[in-house]
Amino acid sequence: MLTVLEKANVLTEALPYIQSFAGKTIVVKFGGHAMVDPKLEEMVLKDIVLMKLVGMNPVIVHGGGPSITEWLKKVDIQAKFIDGLRVTDEATMEVAEMVLAGKINKGLVSQINLYGGKAVGLCGKDGGMILAEKKKSEQDLGLVGEVTEINTGILSILSAEGYIPVVAPVAAGKDGETLNINADYVAGALGGALKAYKLVLLTDVEGIYLDERSESLASRLNEVEIRQLIAKGVIKGGMIPKVESCLAALGSGVENIHIVDGRKPHALLLEMFTKEGIGTMVVKE
Amino acid sequence: MLTVLEKANVLTEALPYIQSFAGKTIVVKFGGHAMVDPKLEEMVLKDIVLMKLVGMNPVIVHGGGPSITEWLKKVDIQAKFIDGLRVTDEATMEVAEMVLAGKINKGLVSQINLYGGKAVGLCGKDGGMILAEKKKSEQDLGLVGEVTEINTGILSILSAEGYIPVVAPVAAGKDGETLNINADYVAGALGGALKAYKLVLLTDVEGIYLDERSESLASRLNEVEIRQLIAKGVIKGGMIPKVESCLAALGSGVENIHIVDGRKPHALLLEMFTKEGIGTMVVKE
Amino acid sequence: MLTVLEKANVLTEALPYIQSFAGKTIVVKFGGHAMVDPKLEEMVLKDIVLMKLVGMNPVIVHGGGPSITEWLKKVDIQAKFIDGLRVTDEATMEVAEMVLAGKINKGLVSQINLYGGKAVGLCGKDGGMILAEKKKSEQDLGLVGEVTEINTGILSILSAEGYIPVVAPVAAGKDGETLNINADYVAGALGGALKAYKLVLLTDVEGIYLDERSESLASRLNEVEIRQLIAKGVIKGGMIPKVESCLAALGSGVENIHIVDGRKPHALLLEMFTKEGIGTMVVKE
Amino acid sequence: MLTVLEKANVLTEALPYIQSFAGKTIVVKFGGHAMVDPKLEEMVLKDIVLMKLVGMNPVIVHGGGPSITEWLKKVDIQAKFIDGLRVTDEATMEVAEMVLAGKINKGLVSQINLYGGKAVGLCGKDGGMILAEKKKSEQDLGLVGEVTEINTGILSILSAEGYIPVVAPVAAGKDGETLNINADYVAGALGGALKAYKLVLLTDVEGIYLDERSESLASRLNEVEIRQLIAKGVIKGGMIPKVESCLAALGSGVENIHIVDGRKPHALLLEMFTKEGIGTMVVKE
Amino acid sequence: MLTVLEKANVLTEALPYIQSFAGKTIVVKFGGHAMVDPKLEEMVLKDIVLMKLVGMNPVIVHGGGPSITEWLKKVDIQAKFIDGLRVTDEATMEVAEMVLAGKINKGLVSQINLYGGKAVGLCGKDGGMILAEKKKSEQDLGLVGEVTEINTGILSILSAEGYIPVVAPVAAGKDGETLNINADYVAGALGGALKAYKLVLLTDVEGIYLDERSESLASRLNEVEIRQLIAKGVIKGGMIPKVESCLAALGSGVENIHIVDGRKPHALLLEMFTKEGIGTMVVKE
Amino acid sequence: MLTVLEKANVLTEALPYIQSFAGKTIVVKFGGHAMVDPKLEEMVLKDIVLMKLVGMNPVIVHGGGPSITEWLKKVDIQAKFIDGLRVTDEATMEVAEMVLAGKINKGLVSQINLYGGKAVGLCGKDGGMILAEKKKSEQDLGLVGEVTEINTGILSILSAEGYIPVVAPVAAGKDGETLNINADYVAGALGGALKAYKLVLLTDVEGIYLDERSESLASRLNEVEIRQLIAKGVIKGGMIPKVESCLAALGSGVENIHIVDGRKPHALLLEMFTKEGIGTMVVKE
Repeated sequence: MLTVLEKANVLTEALPYIQSFAGKTIVVKFGGHAMVDPKLEEMVLKDIVLMKLVGMNPVIVHGGGPSITEWLKKVDIQAKFIDGLRVTDEATMEVAEMVLAGKINKGLVSQINLYGGKAVGLCGKDGGMILAEKKKSEQDLGLVGEVTEINTGILSILSAEGYIPVVAPVAAGKDGETLNINADYVAGALGGALKAYKLVLLTDVEGIYLDERSESLASRLNEVEIRQLIAKGVIKGGMIPKVESCLAALGSGVENIHIVDGRKPHALLLEMFTKEGIGTMVVKE
Repeated sequence: MLTVLEKANVLTEALPYIQSFAGKTIVVKFGGHAMVDPKLEEMVLKDIVLMKLVGMNPVIVHGGGPSITEWLKKVDIQAKFIDGLRVTDEATMEVAEMVLAGKINKGLVSQINLYGGKAVGLCGKDGGMILAEKKKSEQDLGLVGEVTEINTGILSILSAEGYIPVVAPVAAGKDGETLNINADYVAGALGGALKAYKLVLLTDVEGIYLDERSESLASRLNEVEIRQLIAKGVIKGGMIPKVESCLAALGSGVENIHIVDGRKPHALLLEMFTKEGIGTMVVKE
Repeated sequence: MLTVLEKANVLTEALPYIQSFAGKTIVVKFGGHAMVDPKLEEMVLKDIVLMKLVGMNPVIVHGGGPSITEWLKKVDIQAKFIDGLRVTDEATMEVAEMVLAGKINKGLVSQINLYGGKAVGLCGKDGGMILAEKKKSEQDLGLVGEVTEINTGILSILSAEGYIPVVAPVAAGKDGETLNINADYVAGALGGALKAYKLVLLTDVEGIYLDERSESLASRLNEVEIRQLIAKGVIKGGMIPKVESCLAALGSGVENIHIVDGRKPHALLLEMFTKEGIGTMVVKE
Repeated sequence: MLTVLEKANVLTEALPYIQSFAGKTIVVKFGGHAMVDPKLEEMVLKDIVLMKLVGMNPVIVHGGGPSITEWLKKVDIQAKFIDGLRVTDEATMEVAEMVLAGKINKGLVSQINLYGGKAVGLCGKDGGMILAEKKKSEQDLGLVGEVTEINTGILSILSAEGYIPVVAPVAAGKDGETLNINADYVAGALGGALKAYKLVLLTDVEGIYLDERSESLASRLNEVEIRQLIAKGVIKGGMIPKVESCLAALGSGVENIHIVDGRKPHALLLEMFTKEGIGTMVVKE
Repeated sequence: MLTVLEKANVLTEALPYIQSFAGKTIVVKFGGHAMVDPKLEEMVLKDIVLMKLVGMNPVIVHGGGPSITEWLKKVDIQAKFIDGLRVTDEATMEVAEMVLAGKINKGLVSQINLYGGKAVGLCGKDGGMILAEKKKSEQDLGLVGEVTEINTGILSILSAEGYIPVVAPVAAGKDGETLNINADYVAGALGGALKAYKLVLLTDVEGIYLDERSESLASRLNEVEIRQLIAKGVIKGGMIPKVESCLAALGSGVENIHIVDGRKPHALLLEMFTKEGIGTMVVKE
Repeated sequence: MLTVLEKANVLTEALPYIQSFAGKTIVVKFGGHAMVDPKLEEMVLKDIVLMKLVGMNPVIVHGGGPSITEWLKKVDIQAKFIDGLRVTDEATMEVAEMVLAGKINKGLVSQINLYGGKAVGLCGKDGGMILAEKKKSEQDLGLVGEVTEINTGILSILSAEGYIPVVAPVAAGKDGETLNINADYVAGALGGALKAYKLVLLTDVEGIYLDERSESLASRLNEVEIRQLIAKGVIKGGMIPKVESCLAALGSGVENIHIVDGRKPHALLLEMFTKEGIGTMVVKE
């Protein structure tokens, strides 16, 4: 049981953050792998509702890899990955869109509404929010896209009107074809275009490690250090889109970028309202 | 080739409609069966873009029955109907939501954007737009819902900001469970709640027939006449949700309700801007 | 009788114009010689009411030469012209002002109101709209003015409030003396000052001819070509103020200038809402 | 030469009036007979410009009888009066409109502009301001109208935008025909419809006399007293429309009504800003 | 040292209060006897700055009894009290006003500004905020006033513009004479007139006791109970103005009224943002 | 007794001033020595109420030297001056603040309210209006401050909302210590920061004299001339802060600066609304 003075101290620490965050946009990437525990998912979404409640403008970008894989199995399509990116033929894309924009997106919306927020679920096609083109790569990834243009109009309107936008990482190409984009990239691009105050990647690791030892968690890394870790192969696999999206967001002027362990209770809330660092902060230099 | 005077006459006829429609909400139900021909679908969506262009506020409610049936087959679920309403267990509901809110909804959004509009795809969960509960009926229909409350906030904001809302007929119950609602009912309920100027049901029949003969198409029917035709069994099957949604919208104060044949080119445009009646108009008395 | 598809095509052609004209200012010079047929006058004024109805801001500048001549006769004053410009002594000016600002102006206002518009009749003195000085010319033209300054304040206010301004081509000099200005010049100067989207001179010829043959009607002429036609004497008499006012308006940035035959039914409407060219378009180069 | 204290006293007296008049509408009837001396006319118009300058909203209604009579002579039409009202055939009406709305109205506008104001000249047709019908009377007065409806929209807009409206007493009937209305009636009707703070009739008498002696000038008369003076024949001729317009304005809620001698220098200014009564005040009881 | 989860729990508890208080007015009476410890005074004022920071509108009413007494001594005036109310002759009033509105008020303003707030010091005369008259009582209390009218205009404006109003309990009577009012009464009257969300009386006792034993602190009392405690003499002396001001505020519709011990650190903050009750809450029934 | 024409002439002269002053800020320094006669004080304050009434924004800065001296005596503190500046130890400062911000300031507020205005009394601490530091000088003046920064926010808000701000010349230093500033300097600094239209120093002399003879009153002096008069010792003592504050205000862009004899009845009113010069005008060159 806390004493009243201990409580007062927490408040005295938190209140100035609340004021300084008022009206600020916070992009939260909520990864598919961080969604596995319903209890934690509830905590994350409730924290986001609280953030909105006290005047911030959270924008959620979600993933959904495990669920897509499961549904591809149901319709007998084999999932295939190259460098952490899903190879996507038309049949796969059709399933991916249905899972991301139909099932997961609307499920998150429904939960947020249950917890007292007002969510609106969108994908990159809605309001022409994200324009994409096929990702250039050595091996053909199929309908995997990369962002070419962001129109934040619809997000700004919804945030201003009290809604919490929830974005599925699916977009249209210039001829209307559907493209699948890595959710980390989408989060970074939206963060940059919205001139977000913070970009938080909620994932299923504690942050970035400098080597294999768990005590090597980096609390702060700059661009040069990240590029070295990639070159050395320490940063690899699914962590690559994350750090690339961080670097892109840094380049667009997002000041505060954090890779945070979504499996820790209230990781978001503590990241927002206390002085303690959590996970790895990515900075310019 | 029209003479200039013929053109002038069309314009002189149409311009006052344009003025009187400015800022008015028009709910268009775009039925799954009216979507079968891509050419016609394109025409319908382009007409809607034009309507927005000249100052109206179209709101689209779409169906998707045939496509749901097709996907249920892919995952080996048997579709089942009672009185034109899909019997919906959890597995069916999951597929239906993915098809309606993920595939068809985002597909329409993408097309409208290609034709120069700015669409935003929503389902009843978004912004808490449609609250539903399990439909009471003699036989258990499973997760089939009926509307209990409409919050038009998100629709009004999007319309005012220049977007065309596209609504999938899926909603949440009070504990967050997903419910499938007949799209005709959703269109009627939204029309009523939005105090829409017009409700147009674009379907795959010419209108309501008084008997089996094709020349018996009714151009105008009132509430009493419709109830008699239902009692006599002339109106039946999939036409029942349509006329019930018309009657509900009538009751909420929508003045102009039309059941129109979506297979006729530019049916919407002609319904809007010319004096000629198309299909069947449903009136109070 | 048109088919519905033919009607739909006219509308599909016209609707984008309506949208792109919304809020745009269109200055219409309605010449005294185009006013002779009451039927046509009614059609012109009704077309202007329609233009206002669908969101354009028409501003009418009218002439009145024949009527001034008639009234001068009644009070035994001899009308005199030099190069198409009326020589104006004080007695003539007094009659001209009464006829233009009192009789014709208020007559047009009254008619527009009858057809459902809301017109306000002004002359250049009202709201200090047009400041003028005596026109410099070799022969003394008396109280013939040329525009020195335009204040569009009153026109913008009236247009914004839903009124159709109707302007008589009479203005005050800097000592308050009344000056008569050619209506074509007034229309060109107002078009320029209002940054009008279109200037349409409704007159009693089909357009500009390249020679004496009626089949030599030019559909498009640029500044250089017009100056050549003046030099050659092909453009002469009352056509000179018209083309000079077009060139002045071009110089002030009005993009679309048309000399149109006001004797053709609905010439204005077709000019506005169809692709077909009518009369002669005057362009920069 | 005044002492500074005398000046200070005038200001201390006047300033509270200025404050209490801010934004108030003052209808000033400026009679044709009060316009004969250009010096006085200048003083009246300059006082009105000052009133506007310090925040009041003056609306001028002018007459023009003597000038109409003069122009009727020029075109050989005989002026005819019954009970102070001009009998008006079509030819007379045509001349009256040209003189009132063309010559006198625009002349006043031009002068006010010279003195630093911004005037806009209107007649009852403009903006549909005054709707009239033929005056019912025992003897046919021809195109003499009486007010049936006032739309003050255009006056309010102009006043709010800093303009001084100047109104000629000509209006349209419901079929568009032009009607001549006594200017006193117009002033009273506008005063009532505008909920004016004051109605001032500037005329060529000192006020209302109780009998033939000049010392019998009444400083204050109520409705009953006025009706008695009419019955006794003391109030007669051109004074009848004046007092009737006062009584009508009283009935519509105008609180302060004054019949003031326009031939006295700065009569308006003194009426506005000093405690001394001028002319005859007409009160309810 | 608190765990992150403990911190998260404090925040999860506090954040909804912050939201529900946004824009709400909180009147804080800061008593002269609660001001004795500079450390506590700093804490109180910093808490008020925090409250403003997160969107509340605190209004401070201060006392100053001890300081007035001290200054009266300096100028050799004897302080005199009847029933806890200062007997106030003109010389006393002059000193009291200087101490309250000059010394204490501006001192609090200066401190709040140092802690990052923007305070504005007022007394009841400013903006005509408090009109008073001499308090009726059996014994003549001299220039002791009671509130007759509150004009909250100046307080609302300052709050809306981001300022923290600090009010000294001095007001003017209707002839301009200065009157001294008990600060508790002022706080209650302002709370009522502002329709405050909360009225907090920060004083130097823990709350209201039901008898002499310190464990008899009442956590909640209604009107009837308070009247009984007064009748029994349990509530007496300086506590009487406090409870009377609470009852008056209750009567004006203030819902939440608390008598809180200002000597406890962060009493205000805990009262605002935690569930625990502090001191005595006064309720209707 | 003035004739109506004389009155009209005063008004015709004054009204244009009223218009041109609308919304303009006028800083009036009301010196302690000009406050000695209650009759004159009433006249000054009533003139200021009138100025507000007709749309100006007066801001009053007051002094209070004689009253401070009197109160210092009461508490046995010896007043001490160097170069017209009060030497201020802590005890003196405490008394000075109480007298200026408590007694005189609230007294003026109360009077202005009695005369129909709405005054709000402030000192430099309120709203962080004036930041000061200890005045640098050869001899230690103690807590005598000079202005380092002006925040006009609170003044602009109050003026815009219809209040008359009354400012006592007391401010806080950066550590919250109270500093006494010469009221002339405060008036000049506020005038400059507010971009005031006029700065009027109401004092107890007729203006600046060029030598000892009373007929040597200068009606206009520029910067160079003033510096020469200071150098020569003609301007000295209490006049030095006055002319220095004028020069500072000149430097900040205040165009109209006047040193006016506050002992003349209605000096302010005449200075505002008549052409006659009063006292000495200070100009750039």
